[in-house]
Amino acid sequence: MIRTTTTWLLAALLIFAHAAAFAAASGTDFSQIKDKYEKDHPGKGKFSQYWEPIPIQKYWNPKNFYQPPTAVSGEVTRDQCVACHQSVTPGAFHAWENSTHAKLEAIRNLSNGQDARFYKKEKLAEIERNLVEQGLLKAGESLKEVGCIDCHGKVGAQSIRHDKDLVMPDRSQCGSCHVQEFAEAESEKDQQWPQGQWGKGHPSHAVDWEANVETAIWAGMAEREIAQGCDMCHYQQNKCDGCHTRHTFSAAEARQPEACATCHNGVDHNEWENYTLSKHGTVYQTHKSTWNFEVPLKDALSKGGYTAPTCQYCHFEFNGEFSHNLVRKVRWGFNPTPAIADNLKHPWFEGRKENWNATCANCHSPSFARSYLDAADKGTLAGLKVEQEARQVVEGLFKDGLLPGQKTNRPVPPVPEKDAPGGFFQLFWAKGNNPSHVERVHADMWEHDLIKLYKGLVHGNPGGFTYTEGWSELMRDYAVIMDENTRLREKAGNTAGAGVKPAAGNEGSNLRNVLGGLALLAGIAVLLYRRKH
Amino acid sequence: MIRTTTTWLLAALLIFAHAAAFAAASGTDFSQIKDKYEKDHPGKGKFSQYWEPIPIQKYWNPKNFYQPPTAVSGEVTRDQCVACHQSVTPGAFHAWENSTHAKLEAIRNLSNGQDARFYKKEKLAEIERNLVEQGLLKAGESLKEVGCIDCHGKVGAQSIRHDKDLVMPDRSQCGSCHVQEFAEAESEKDQQWPQGQWGKGHPSHAVDWEANVETAIWAGMAEREIAQGCDMCHYQQNKCDGCHTRHTFSAAEARQPEACATCHNGVDHNEWENYTLSKHGTVYQTHKSTWNFEVPLKDALSKGGYTAPTCQYCHFEFNGEFSHNLVRKVRWGFNPTPAIADNLKHPWFEGRKENWNATCANCHSPSFARSYLDAADKGTLAGLKVEQEARQVVEGLFKDGLLPGQKTNRPVPPVPEKDAPGGFFQLFWAKGNNPSHVERVHADMWEHDLIKLYKGLVHGNPGGFTYTEGWSELMRDYAVIMDENTRLREKAGNTAGAGVKPAAGNEGSNLRNVLGGLALLAGIAVLLYRRKH
Amino acid sequence: MIRTTTTWLLAALLIFAHAAAFAAASGTDFSQIKDKYEKDHPGKGKFSQYWEPIPIQKYWNPKNFYQPPTAVSGEVTRDQCVACHQSVTPGAFHAWENSTHAKLEAIRNLSNGQDARFYKKEKLAEIERNLVEQGLLKAGESLKEVGCIDCHGKVGAQSIRHDKDLVMPDRSQCGSCHVQEFAEAESEKDQQWPQGQWGKGHPSHAVDWEANVETAIWAGMAEREIAQGCDMCHYQQNKCDGCHTRHTFSAAEARQPEACATCHNGVDHNEWENYTLSKHGTVYQTHKSTWNFEVPLKDALSKGGYTAPTCQYCHFEFNGEFSHNLVRKVRWGFNPTPAIADNLKHPWFEGRKENWNATCANCHSPSFARSYLDAADKGTLAGLKVEQEARQVVEGLFKDGLLPGQKTNRPVPPVPEKDAPGGFFQLFWAKGNNPSHVERVHADMWEHDLIKLYKGLVHGNPGGFTYTEGWSELMRDYAVIMDENTRLREKAGNTAGAGVKPAAGNEGSNLRNVLGGLALLAGIAVLLYRRKH
Repeated sequence: MIRTTTTWLLAALLIFAHAAAFAAASGTDFSQIKDKYEKDHPGKGKFSQYWEPIPIQKYWNPKNFYQPPTAVSGEVTRDQCVACHQSVTPGAFHAWENSTHAKLEAIRNLSNGQDARFYKKEKLAEIERNLVEQGLLKAGESLKEVGCIDCHGKVGAQSIRHDKDLVMPDRSQCGSCHVQEFAEAESEKDQQWPQGQWGKGHPSHAVDWEANVETAIWAGMAEREIAQGCDMCHYQQNKCDGCHTRHTFSAAEARQPEACATCHNGVDHNEWENYTLSKHGTVYQTHKSTWNFEVPLKDALSKGGYTAPTCQYCHFEFNGEFSHNLVRKVRWGFNPTPAIADNLKHPWFEGRKENWNATCANCHSPSFARSYLDAADKGTLAGLKVEQEARQVVEGLFKDGLLPGQKTNRPVPPVPEKDAPGGFFQLFWAKGNNPSHVERVHADMWEHDLIKLYKGLVHGNPGGFTYTEGWSELMRDYAVIMDENTRLREKAGNTAGAGVKPAAGNEGSNLRNVLGGLALLAGIAVLLYRRKH
Repeated sequence: MIRTTTTWLLAALLIFAHAAAFAAASGTDFSQIKDKYEKDHPGKGKFSQYWEPIPIQKYWNPKNFYQPPTAVSGEVTRDQCVACHQSVTPGAFHAWENSTHAKLEAIRNLSNGQDARFYKKEKLAEIERNLVEQGLLKAGESLKEVGCIDCHGKVGAQSIRHDKDLVMPDRSQCGSCHVQEFAEAESEKDQQWPQGQWGKGHPSHAVDWEANVETAIWAGMAEREIAQGCDMCHYQQNKCDGCHTRHTFSAAEARQPEACATCHNGVDHNEWENYTLSKHGTVYQTHKSTWNFEVPLKDALSKGGYTAPTCQYCHFEFNGEFSHNLVRKVRWGFNPTPAIADNLKHPWFEGRKENWNATCANCHSPSFARSYLDAADKGTLAGLKVEQEARQVVEGLFKDGLLPGQKTNRPVPPVPEKDAPGGFFQLFWAKGNNPSHVERVHADMWEHDLIKLYKGLVHGNPGGFTYTEGWSELMRDYAVIMDENTRLREKAGNTAGAGVKPAAGNEGSNLRNVLGGLALLAGIAVLLYRRKH
Repeated sequence: MIRTTTTWLLAALLIFAHAAAFAAASGTDFSQIKDKYEKDHPGKGKFSQYWEPIPIQKYWNPKNFYQPPTAVSGEVTRDQCVACHQSVTPGAFHAWENSTHAKLEAIRNLSNGQDARFYKKEKLAEIERNLVEQGLLKAGESLKEVGCIDCHGKVGAQSIRHDKDLVMPDRSQCGSCHVQEFAEAESEKDQQWPQGQWGKGHPSHAVDWEANVETAIWAGMAEREIAQGCDMCHYQQNKCDGCHTRHTFSAAEARQPEACATCHNGVDHNEWENYTLSKHGTVYQTHKSTWNFEVPLKDALSKGGYTAPTCQYCHFEFNGEFSHNLVRKVRWGFNPTPAIADNLKHPWFEGRKENWNATCANCHSPSFARSYLDAADKGTLAGLKVEQEARQVVEGLFKDGLLPGQKTNRPVPPVPEKDAPGGFFQLFWAKGNNPSHVERVHADMWEHDLIKLYKGLVHGNPGGFTYTEGWSELMRDYAVIMDENTRLREKAGNTAGAGVKPAAGNEGSNLRNVLGGLALLAGIAVLLYRRKH
């Protein structure tokens, strides 16, 4: 007997549970999912009174804002759409022309299971069944192509009025054919956190538009052209072309890490940088020319030639299956907070850690996986502790009214936002002495440094959590905040929040405390000596 | 009738105008262009008295500084060049050996239009006509190869004296064969801005060496080895190998975005990062293995398989044609300033915006293109407004003599540079308290944050203008400047420039003002309450 | 006679010297190298009393910390290893399945020298000779495969006890087959600096674990999960899979620049960024699909199609030969210091500069190479001068007890670390007012800005040493430090360290001084005038 049993029994149980949920999703009627999708959609959201869409936003949320252009009028046929756009928007035409949508026959004629795209043949049959069920295709008929008119009008339509009927497709338009993927993606909304750390369904692609428009500073800021930049990523709730870029809508594209990069990079979610610089990422880059991205994720290792994971491989996976619900292993969300840190022993979090162990153990030993994930958790906790200490210092300054200009020049942020020290809004709005410098440093600390620390840890990028990003940045910002605290309190003659913490430099393991005792005393002696001379 | 007419009539007119200009360029005699090229070249520039070239600079501006090495003497033949350098500099040899220059016969023998390089056959014939015209090739003869001696000596030479005649090729040396490309590139010098926002021909590759040597701090700074780093990009006026790297001189290389990356990255022109992280860039990265970069840009969509633009596709294009004049659609240059912002309604700027609309509309609907470009303009204006407010604050501190050390330790920058608060020179020179910290923050603000905001917007990289770069950085630097202003003025007992601006936090749309009124009052009440307790 | 002789004679001499050393290395007996390897290995290092390994560290230093998992017990055979891990860790299995280790017959059957991997046939024979010598293979027998058990147990073993005998391979385990590479890599330990700028063998991969565990703050910091992040790169002394990722162990992977990227990026060794953005890197990226990385480095130019160098091409090369000793051309290490700067004329440094000239001259003219390397040295010296001036200012503040909180709230760092202004530990540890803000800025200056300046220069990335990283960052941090110095000394009524240095703004060449005199006077006049008005 060369295997442990508990872990695998647990895994088996979870797989069964998952399979059941999955079957339910597949069986769900399209119209039901669509109805729920539309009912759940927030439109302009709860702050709708504070903002009006600008023209470009009709493309980020077509469901609520899109109107066909009036410049082009009249009835156009299926063939006219293609013929005209071939010359008007040749880039879009050629992208479509080379897509699977334009070449359904090529898929239908695949007879050889060796072709990586062979799985699409069954997918096509499934889609045709979906269309028959919706009355969009006659039983027994086959779909000829997916042309302009099928997505920008109605599946199977022969003509539309360009200035009246033109549709800018949303999630549910893609979902009418791709029912399973739609159902999987929508199932992200069912997620609930055990202590309400996040609202139901959050954070996920399925509610990212809601998260966007219901952020107070987003709704309140005057610069709508800057605000709409947030929409450019926070539109996955509305559309599918964030990953499957129009007009190729390629699955192979969406399986490559770069497909995630436009949104998952930068100051508060630098997953792209962390992946790329990790060994996972460098193996991807040095070997990818021999990998086959046409292969579905489930066959990535055995048939796709993957020798390292992609973003998709780990985040679509759950108990050995792959789906468009990406949040079933979420634990820290993307923002380490005490509400999560204090509950990591809860079964909800423990179970998901087991799921991650299983994912890593596709390539690593379970012992390696567990050790690494434990280190990632503890490292994140260490960063959170530093940030929380700094937070108290900044909030103390605010409470004591000691921030520069706090009493003379502190405008309030635009409604519906509310003033608060180190608040999220201070990353996007500034006026007079709001925020003060030290508040902004703290906002950077919790929103950037701490998140990068955590992301660097979980993605295995050493420089990403030690010193290029993460820990060393936390140290820097901590130093700035403590420096400022000392100055402001000395100036105010109020040093209540700035005293020496005894042995502050020597916190840590018992071992260290015991061994380090004498050395510490010696060090203090030297320091005192220096101060006197 | 399903098309609007005005836009297309305008486009048609512009195409005619362009074609006419183009014909003129093609027809231009090489010697005329070369004469003008040399006459226009600034050599050491107007600050020549302040600096002397260091040895490496003979390679950045060979026209003015290059002298053959004396270590190798004697007459060497065409074949000896190749034979010796095959062993002396094998890397250069093999790069050349695989280049089109070394394989003209392969091009000449192409009979099949299906080969993407077929267009080079006509290009070769054109070049031979150019050479015959210049007396460098006999009529009826064909060019055998372009070997070492043709570029480093004279086209067609059979031998040169290595220590006397050796040439380090400049733009005009390449131009003697590639007359059309030379003429196109040189035509950038003809550009004039309607209100003189930039000098004639600026900014462009065609005058980038001039821009370099006529920058006061560049000429004045003592550290010539650092200054020459600027030359490493600012030499396109002098040489063609910035894009067509020696000794392959590949057109296919120069058509790939990475070819632009060495110069177009970083703090004040982060186009590479913005492109790469945009959806354009991620489509490029996930699909490029199926694109053919041997195809000329005009056929990129139809024959090259492009499903997204490259840098080159948009910036070489003008009204549907492609040339080496890259500035025909320039509007903001690379530096958003009030002089441009105040004139965007001028026909010169409006016309160029129409040209951009047409470029984007190769793939996007004109309505999308227009909406996006409008948002980019307005977003840039929003950033400029923040920077201008901060500028006034810093200039106010300077004017009032309140900057740290301003009266006790402010050395002047080296001639020909002149002192000024937040000046460009403060990015490259510092001594004593010049610049003060707050000035440097402002220099970063206008030269880095604002430019990145604009570049992020126009390249469709959401994080690049919202919070990773751009807007959020502007907010941070604004906060630092206001914080400092409050401190310095409080210290000086001078608070003239630091008062509360009424309702400053509530600027914006009328809608917001009306709706936000009560909430604002409530917020102020809360704030006052807090301050008292 | 068309060649200089001195350089080439010198080169020839060096090649002979090298070849002799090389032969010695190849001839070395495995057991001797292994013994020395183990004797030299520091284990937990000289600070072992201050830290205890956490679980994940058994994978970073298996030699000292690894124990087989007890969860799996019993004797397992060679075939059982493979069969079970095919299902348990399919990713690892498939990576191995496609590796040369799993396909030795494919190498053995190569008959055609045209296959780029043909050189591996001789390598295999050499390895078999090594194994025969060690008694691990019978003379005349051939190695069938390198399976799980050969590395995780013992070469040639037929079964192991999984919970007792399982090995996590270290450098010497790989070295038992790959004796030559092991010997080359270990020879890095022999390096000695002429004035002891670095300890024997430092800095190099061969002692990077020692450098790690013998860094005081690493050993002393309480957050062991953060500290182990350093190990994730600093384990090359222990294992070979930092470059040859398990379980493919591909030479072709390790020849690509990305293989270096996980460790060589970021704040204090941004080689990856510099290479990628240099012309070397952009040529690599635009042409690499036509290069063959299976070709050994010595044939990279002639047979591999390289038209630009990779990291490996320059750093493995020494006098025309390539080996796993990467430090034979090291001059500045990675940290420009006065101890190096003051000795660049020493023959040790001069000789290595000649070696670099020869490397560059594979593609560039020796004259170009020399000019560029001279500029890189002088540019580095310029940066060092700025950093040293700032260092004196910060140390002066510390000495005078003027840093914020220095007398009221300055905890000492954890033992074995010792307090010091601007110390390395301040990048990784902060408590109370240690470090003060200005100290941290100085730590960033010498550890980040200066190193990036130097790395940007030597890797030919213009923005990397002028203004995106390097020089302009040095200017910024210098300004922050001088600003702070003025404030703190003004506050303390101590302006000894803050006076105007006469003509400080006008240092530089004599030419500049002479020409600039009048302009300087005029500038001062203007400044005085402004101050009065």
